[in-house]
Amino acid sequence: MIQPHILDQISSVIGNENFFTSPEDKITYSYDGTPLLEHLPDAIVRPQSKEQISQLVKLANTEKFSIVPRGNGTGLSGGSVPTENCVILDMSQWKKILEIDKENLTAWVEPGVITSQLHQEVEKLGLFYPPDPGSMNICTIGGNVAENSGGLRGLKYGVTKNYVMGLEVVLPNGEIIMCGGKSVKDVAGYNLKDFFIGSEGTLGIFTRILLKLIPKPQSSKTMLAYFNSKADAGRTVSAIIANKIIPATVEFLDNTTIRCVEEYSKIGLPTDIDSLLLLETDGHPVVVEEEAQKIVECCRENNAIEVKTAQTVEEAMRLKTARRSAFSALARTKPTTILEDITVPRSEIAVMLEKIESISKKYDILIGTFGHAGDGNLHPTCLTDERNRAEIERAEKAYAEIFEEAVKLGGTITGEHGTGLAKKKFLHLSTGHAAIDAMRTIKKALDPNNILNPGKVFDI
Amino acid sequence: MIQPHILDQISSVIGNENFFTSPEDKITYSYDGTPLLEHLPDAIVRPQSKEQISQLVKLANTEKFSIVPRGNGTGLSGGSVPTENCVILDMSQWKKILEIDKENLTAWVEPGVITSQLHQEVEKLGLFYPPDPGSMNICTIGGNVAENSGGLRGLKYGVTKNYVMGLEVVLPNGEIIMCGGKSVKDVAGYNLKDFFIGSEGTLGIFTRILLKLIPKPQSSKTMLAYFNSKADAGRTVSAIIANKIIPATVEFLDNTTIRCVEEYSKIGLPTDIDSLLLLETDGHPVVVEEEAQKIVECCRENNAIEVKTAQTVEEAMRLKTARRSAFSALARTKPTTILEDITVPRSEIAVMLEKIESISKKYDILIGTFGHAGDGNLHPTCLTDERNRAEIERAEKAYAEIFEEAVKLGGTITGEHGTGLAKKKFLHLSTGHAAIDAMRTIKKALDPNNILNPGKVFDI
Repeated sequence: MIQPHILDQISSVIGNENFFTSPEDKITYSYDGTPLLEHLPDAIVRPQSKEQISQLVKLANTEKFSIVPRGNGTGLSGGSVPTENCVILDMSQWKKILEIDKENLTAWVEPGVITSQLHQEVEKLGLFYPPDPGSMNICTIGGNVAENSGGLRGLKYGVTKNYVMGLEVVLPNGEIIMCGGKSVKDVAGYNLKDFFIGSEGTLGIFTRILLKLIPKPQSSKTMLAYFNSKADAGRTVSAIIANKIIPATVEFLDNTTIRCVEEYSKIGLPTDIDSLLLLETDGHPVVVEEEAQKIVECCRENNAIEVKTAQTVEEAMRLKTARRSAFSALARTKPTTILEDITVPRSEIAVMLEKIESISKKYDILIGTFGHAGDGNLHPTCLTDERNRAEIERAEKAYAEIFEEAVKLGGTITGEHGTGLAKKKFLHLSTGHAAIDAMRTIKKALDPNNILNPGKVFDI
Repeated sequence: MIQPHILDQISSVIGNENFFTSPEDKITYSYDGTPLLEHLPDAIVRPQSKEQISQLVKLANTEKFSIVPRGNGTGLSGGSVPTENCVILDMSQWKKILEIDKENLTAWVEPGVITSQLHQEVEKLGLFYPPDPGSMNICTIGGNVAENSGGLRGLKYGVTKNYVMGLEVVLPNGEIIMCGGKSVKDVAGYNLKDFFIGSEGTLGIFTRILLKLIPKPQSSKTMLAYFNSKADAGRTVSAIIANKIIPATVEFLDNTTIRCVEEYSKIGLPTDIDSLLLLETDGHPVVVEEEAQKIVECCRENNAIEVKTAQTVEEAMRLKTARRSAFSALARTKPTTILEDITVPRSEIAVMLEKIESISKKYDILIGTFGHAGDGNLHPTCLTDERNRAEIERAEKAYAEIFEEAVKLGGTITGEHGTGLAKKKFLHLSTGHAAIDAMRTIKKALDPNNILNPGKVFDI
């Protein structure tokens, strides 16, 4: 517990009107999008300037409390769940798009800007910000940068880090630095910018973010392909890439997910197929037409039962919205939804899908799997009930095995959700112990009092 | 000086046949591509395995000597110039392409592979490795990663870091770690991989590198546009981007550079124009045709005197080879060539070119400027003679002013060559002192004995 006299000091740094300690407030901020994790914070603050944040950080070093930065709390690895002795630093009110520079194709934003709002603003100008996490309608850019979020367009366009050109950061010692800028190339000194991206609030607090934009693709085509087996779906993905086509989107849904999505959004998906791929190609109309044709051929050659092309923009949007609803659709069916986030090399998708299926049977738990098949990022999602301890334990064992199998295939325990609290005990599987030691050495050096989001990613 | 009994220990770790101390060897390794910098190493070693490198690093910690990693020594910031008390770790013999994975579009290479050799090998398979530093025919991939090298295709395709998926690294404590892998998305733990990229041999030694490949563009078109003023050339670049075209290449050459290149390669460039742009668009033939037309229009609308399109692949190659010869062509004319590497936001190119011109006049030195105008990366190159101390001093003052102006325009002191020895005293201009303190804190934590390439990037 942070002592009352220290809470008073915090309040006077941030201003009493931006300082919250009521039970209702504490409960509201005691969890994020991750199941099974919660903890009451000692206080919540809404800082009004970077200088206030810097002062707060300095106070935390003197008085030894910790700071947990938070956007809209949609994270799926517990990255913004409160820790012992902590103040939640709520950045969700920092939601100004400060500049869109059409000449340099950049945007300066505050960290609390909601991802899809940025999409809308830049698209009005014929520009494009590709990263599109599943939660893009509620998540914030600051959270996206802290977790290095991916999304549906990752295969062709890359992830958040590919679009961050500059970061203003409050360091754990309270200093405010700027990394990067509008220069497309910059190798002056160490690459701190990319190191802060994905550091999950443990190394610095972002106060301004400079993003790279690109010209908006002129056209796109969205397709759906149905399969009787995951192996066929997996082989289709490989065949498309082997044909040197990099689609904007290649999403996979298994039967469990299809059934939940159909029940939720009623868009006419057949519920008796094994799996489907949702594919999109975008760019110049001529290229889109050619690629779409080849994609359809690849699907057919790999035993697709049916391939449908969306005839209108609205139909395409309906399909993509349905895919985006997969998590919510699955979550409706059971009280507790544990969404995982392994990634394997593209060539191993079919193998991994089979492993997930057999592990699900072995531990007698219900797993629906969907994900970004084009980049090997799969979300095996366990539908369970946290009150059923026995089932939760079986699920935990199943996930441990899924992580091990993913790593054995050359993959990773997390593709886009981060390590946070939820996965830190598995981190060594992906990185090895010596690399964690190196990470820990850096964390200790930059944040010797361990004030920034302690206990996330790894323990000190 | 490293004591003889320690040199004996080094020799027994690496094997006597891979250990060199003759004066001829020492002189050969006493400099790299950077003018005005040289120092004799105490020894040169050619390691045969990562385990040997690990042992050498551990010995360096015990016996307090330093290790300077080196590829083919083409660097332009003094990154591989020997320091006091050092062994040169020559990685140029590690030149195997270990695997090209057509399914995952990746290549495992050793760090000594020459960049253009990798280009040739992957292009045989219809694949493409975009980074193409000016020195691509002699530089190594390991050096490219250590400096995060750019190249002519940076505007559309990005720089080296955008193509590194995995790194095997010997840490300063001798541990061997693997960062990243074949998964397209991976956010497990801190992003050590991107932090090592561009760390200029000061944080780790690369022993294997996993690169991302992309499908080879189907076609391309190369154009030359001549201008009577730099402002027109600069405005043309802005107009092309504002038209939402991202060319693969937009190279700028000023009159001094044009004259030197023409004298060197005799390809028929007019030597009386102020400047030229070499432009290339690549991709699907239909898109290339459309983009080329629009590029020609942009040139004409911005007062190009003449716009020529290469009629054959050979002609295009001749033009690009001539551009690649710019550094050599300039270097022939005077005994000493100091090549700089500022970058400014694209919108500021015309302004920066004018500043360079007036600074060159102010200090009465001859500067030829060429560079990657599309990404704002310019190489103002001073043609001088190091025996003329007065002129060298004026050149140094001129560069200090050029750096300051670049930073004032929102740019950086180095876009693709690195900080090394040559530019460390200017680093704070780009990054600020607090960021250098953070970098120094990390370096000290990971390499407490300062054994890896000490004195590069910043002083401890």
